Amino acid sequence: MNNERFDGYLSLINKRLDTLIPECDFGEDIVHRAMKYSLSIGGKRIRPVLVLEFCRICGGSVAEAVDLACALEMVHTYSLIHDDLPCMDDDDLRRGMPSCHVKFGEEYALLAGDGLLTRAFGVIANSSLSRRNPTAALNAISALSYLAGCNGMIGGQVVDLINEDKAAPIEILEVLDRLKTGALIKCAALLGCLCADADEKMTMACIGYAEKIGHAFQVVDDILDVTGDEKELGKPIGSDAENNKSTYVSLLGLEKSKELAASLTEEALSSIDYFGEEGEFLKDLAIKLTKRTR
Amino acid sequence: MNNERFDGYLSLINKRLDTLIPECDFGEDIVHRAMKYSLSIGGKRIRPVLVLEFCRICGGSVAEAVDLACALEMVHTYSLIHDDLPCMDDDDLRRGMPSCHVKFGEEYALLAGDGLLTRAFGVIANSSLSRRNPTAALNAISALSYLAGCNGMIGGQVVDLINEDKAAPIEILEVLDRLKTGALIKCAALLGCLCADADEKMTMACIGYAEKIGHAFQVVDDILDVTGDEKELGKPIGSDAENNKSTYVSLLGLEKSKELAASLTEEALSSIDYFGEEGEFLKDLAIKLTKRTR
Repeated sequence: MNNERFDGYLSLINKRLDTLIPECDFGEDIVHRAMKYSLSIGGKRIRPVLVLEFCRICGGSVAEAVDLACALEMVHTYSLIHDDLPCMDDDDLRRGMPSCHVKFGEEYALLAGDGLLTRAFGVIANSSLSRRNPTAALNAISALSYLAGCNGMIGGQVVDLINEDKAAPIEILEVLDRLKTGALIKCAALLGCLCADADEKMTMACIGYAEKIGHAFQVVDDILDVTGDEKELGKPIGSDAENNKSTYVSLLGLEKSKELAASLTEEALSSIDYFGEEGEFLKDLAIKLTKRTR
Repeated sequence: MNNERFDGYLSLINKRLDTLIPECDFGEDIVHRAMKYSLSIGGKRIRPVLVLEFCRICGGSVAEAVDLACALEMVHTYSLIHDDLPCMDDDDLRRGMPSCHVKFGEEYALLAGDGLLTRAFGVIANSSLSRRNPTAALNAISALSYLAGCNGMIGGQVVDLINEDKAAPIEILEVLDRLKTGALIKCAALLGCLCADADEKMTMACIGYAEKIGHAFQVVDDILDVTGDEKELGKPIGSDAENNKSTYVSLLGLEKSKELAASLTEEALSSIDYFGEEGEFLKDLAIKLTKRTR
């Protein structure tokens, strides 16, 4: 993959994220610090990188897409904070670091999540896209609200909760992944395309790619929960099996799961063929995600 | 007060709220039900009624303001759900009914709050205002994000948490109320004015009124915590004193608190003088809020 471009995107995103959480203007900045902490403990920044590349590949301005990319990362980060809370997954570690509620307390982690979600929509409303093309910005807000909402990512959390400690069939697992992980990755495609005033064919190619890598991503996650290295992953191995959770590995076996990940990746590559040589970066990224070890 | 108009507003708001939570499209509708439950257990609907009246008084279309009013009520409702959670105020009752987490479980209450907050921004993005005046809709989203965010309502929660079990001075109490209660009431003024393309003078008059009644509202709340009727209020009396919480009553005494509520109400009335006879509804509402018993 074009690492230089990837690193360039990362640098744009991280610099901008740092400035998008406003200064606290009333003295008690613990929630501001909690928001910044959770944004800073990193993660792969896959979603915002995708927003920038989808925008570029559709002929848009990467600079203009940065705020939308950051808004999406804020929504992803809020979901991790709330997902780690004791009443949800009760995870003490996030990417090898203390999770937000362990570091700042449960009440402030709750509010930090709320704060990031609230801020994300304001970031899009105040972006340069809003000034150039207000209707596109409103469509971006609408897409983010829908895909992060109760028929999108939050719906995925519900399916996850209802089926924990249950051996759910593969149809349920697919709904779960389409909503819980897939929705925000699809959102990355929509935000990038909206920023580039992309036409329908471009948008469908980007969404097709996003849906396939979103699915592949989750299959690989399940594989890594069995084969991964605890230190590299920054979280305990085997937790899915321990919780009697259905996974692609428990339902299909390890080999078939690897085959599924590979064939989903192939489909993602075909979808991006529409862009010819310009698609190299996204193709390399899909392959890299399949081969990742954390 | 013009009760007919108030009831007309209530009916518009309640009917629309009922349709704005989408149907669940994947089978597990517990969060959808939790969102609808918390919206339906009522409350006074002060904020959305204010949006509609601010819009009307500035010459705008009430019908167009309904979606913005509902979005604001969704944000208010999410904040109550999260505020009642065990890690926050741990309240089992809300308006005399089981709070969301008591009825649906903590994890689903968390997600119902997240869902309402997420949906609110989508409602504005898809409103008829968005089609008529996209920039005004973006300004409404920006205002809601700011005033509900970590330097607004969430900031107020932080000041509240930091100062619980502490005898905070009146300056802190004023910051707390300006953020925790005041921010969303100010937001009602901004949303109504944006919907009506109000000029600066109109907007300042509405904001002035909103700030004063927001402050008065909280003073009256503290008074009712001492003098109110438990059954009518739908929550226990004396809980502030029990928690060693500073209140206007504990800092100023009951009589001076009543005087403060009265003088804030007077200031709200003067601010609305700008609108002449058209201001009657808002003036009556301010007086009614001061004299309320629940």
